[in-house]
Amino acid sequence: MAPSSGNGRPWTYARSGVDRSRVSSALAALLSEVSYRPPPSSGRLVDAPGHYAGMVRIGRETIAVTTDTVGTKVKLAAEVGRWEEVGEDTVAVNVNDLASVGARPAGLVDTILCARPDPEVFRAIGRGLNRGLRLSRCSLLGGETAVVPEVVDGIDLGATAFGFFPRGRRPVLGARVRPGDRVLGVPSSGVHANGLTLVRRLLKERSVDLLRPRPGGRRPVGEEVLTATRIYSAIGDALADHGATHGLAHVSGGGVRNLVRLHPRVRFVLDHWPEVPPLFRWLQELGGLSDEEMFQTFNMGIGFMLVVGPARFAETRRRLTRAGGGDAVEIGHVERGRGVSVPNYGLSFEGYS
Amino acid sequence: MAPSSGNGRPWTYARSGVDRSRVSSALAALLSEVSYRPPPSSGRLVDAPGHYAGMVRIGRETIAVTTDTVGTKVKLAAEVGRWEEVGEDTVAVNVNDLASVGARPAGLVDTILCARPDPEVFRAIGRGLNRGLRLSRCSLLGGETAVVPEVVDGIDLGATAFGFFPRGRRPVLGARVRPGDRVLGVPSSGVHANGLTLVRRLLKERSVDLLRPRPGGRRPVGEEVLTATRIYSAIGDALADHGATHGLAHVSGGGVRNLVRLHPRVRFVLDHWPEVPPLFRWLQELGGLSDEEMFQTFNMGIGFMLVVGPARFAETRRRLTRAGGGDAVEIGHVERGRGVSVPNYGLSFEGYS
Repeated sequence: MAPSSGNGRPWTYARSGVDRSRVSSALAALLSEVSYRPPPSSGRLVDAPGHYAGMVRIGRETIAVTTDTVGTKVKLAAEVGRWEEVGEDTVAVNVNDLASVGARPAGLVDTILCARPDPEVFRAIGRGLNRGLRLSRCSLLGGETAVVPEVVDGIDLGATAFGFFPRGRRPVLGARVRPGDRVLGVPSSGVHANGLTLVRRLLKERSVDLLRPRPGGRRPVGEEVLTATRIYSAIGDALADHGATHGLAHVSGGGVRNLVRLHPRVRFVLDHWPEVPPLFRWLQELGGLSDEEMFQTFNMGIGFMLVVGPARFAETRRRLTRAGGGDAVEIGHVERGRGVSVPNYGLSFEGYS
Repeated sequence: MAPSSGNGRPWTYARSGVDRSRVSSALAALLSEVSYRPPPSSGRLVDAPGHYAGMVRIGRETIAVTTDTVGTKVKLAAEVGRWEEVGEDTVAVNVNDLASVGARPAGLVDTILCARPDPEVFRAIGRGLNRGLRLSRCSLLGGETAVVPEVVDGIDLGATAFGFFPRGRRPVLGARVRPGDRVLGVPSSGVHANGLTLVRRLLKERSVDLLRPRPGGRRPVGEEVLTATRIYSAIGDALADHGATHGLAHVSGGGVRNLVRLHPRVRFVLDHWPEVPPLFRWLQELGGLSDEEMFQTFNMGIGFMLVVGPARFAETRRRLTRAGGGDAVEIGHVERGRGVSVPNYGLSFEGYS
């Protein structure tokens, strides 16, 4: 999801096999041409370059919009023959971005591109969409289904979601983040929908049987990796109105570096990173991947972060627990400086992308 | 673009080579699973099944959302090596749907799926997006660029747009359409972005040289077919507040049958269809296509329709002209009955899909 401003447009991509600088150049070229700014009669843009959602003020309401696809996780869904999880992900990847600016989801439109429509696959996707909508209290407002065998191999799943800020709530964009703030992390449900091209390459190269559990695992690897992305809408909605909430961050593509999107001129020190879930450690060993690659590609067990003021901390925890985030852990704090560090792993990241 | 209601979800597809009943079954299966309806605290749905946009009421504002891709027109763009037009189409196909409910465009997010990002292609797409945004007075609020060579061959271009109803304007959904109303048609700029799979099949089967004009044509065929979709935003915006405007319709996939979306229990009699532009006649001859197939696949020269009350007709025309629709022609009227007919061609259509 990207803001309209000329730079800082985040992009989702499969790190493996993708020339990142080429993607950046292509996007920069596109955005260099998009100079038009409409008159205020078309709504007033809320400037938040590089943030999780685009926002525009219409009358007394501010509308936040996010758009994202589940990427190559659909390929794993096809290999395993399970579609409900990626259906749910289609909602999750978008509403979690809305949660990152404190917007309450209102509506979602899905886009399904496919070579050939299979009713049973569509039914499973529908079940997943419905579950995602229920967990985020969001309406399906429409959709587009294009049967384009010349364009798509298999299925592509994406969506656009929009949300609002009830009762005069203001967007939570991170401007109030300051040294001394505490960082809380809410666990993920698995790899979510990021890094899947890399995961699939590893599974294939190491000839991993998707139908059997990994060592120490309980479910078949294919199912474990497919696990639907946890939805943080209730947490975002409950905490956005809390004065101590200074920033919210969905840990999506870019891993811990997502925190930089909240404030470019502080340092997020994640010195209490919890034990990394076994699935991530296994994937890391499978590929011989560095900690750096892991922390900037995967969520490493923490799917959503809250940057909160040190005051009223007990109330913050109570609100979190009531909203389903009772498993949140304190993972670090904010200092003077820049970027994000994970000291226990000797990691330091300067920017978001 | 589709409403959330369980049936009537329109779908865009390439008629050639696509099993239509299979698409319907797949969509019906998906929608049968999407039963969740959120509480009013997430916004109140505006019920308009089968219409051009999904709508939800948030506070005092009603937000309309449309989502669509340019379909296989991207394949022609690749063959001709021109991308600006499909960039503009990405905006047009969405804002024209917004115009069909009388919503003013506020924001758009684009989705580009590609196998390999080419900066020059992206630059041209950006130019087209910018032109479309300027013509519709809409902001680019974000976007998603996914480099997914395993999923997409070439490029897929789509977007989601949202709009609003300024100063208490109400959505124009067709409920006030009644026998005696007049139907005005605003010319199209060409085939727009519908029926392209069929067009491309014809061009290929007949070994048409895309670089040379068709008989009687002035520009190379490839360029003529690529011509960007005319944008009707200014017309929709100017006419939606006019009391005599009873219905608005973007002539997209489904051709003249789109009118049925406005009101299921009247008959639209298009007995003054203007001369069909030469490009359509040439395509029809090329493929030996029936009038029925042509009128339910292509816009046949009319890209946007207005159903207006007979009173204050001069004022309606003046408003149209001021909004850039001075070339609109009266193409028919509304009678008792059902469906759409084009008597001069002996055509009668019962439903939209």
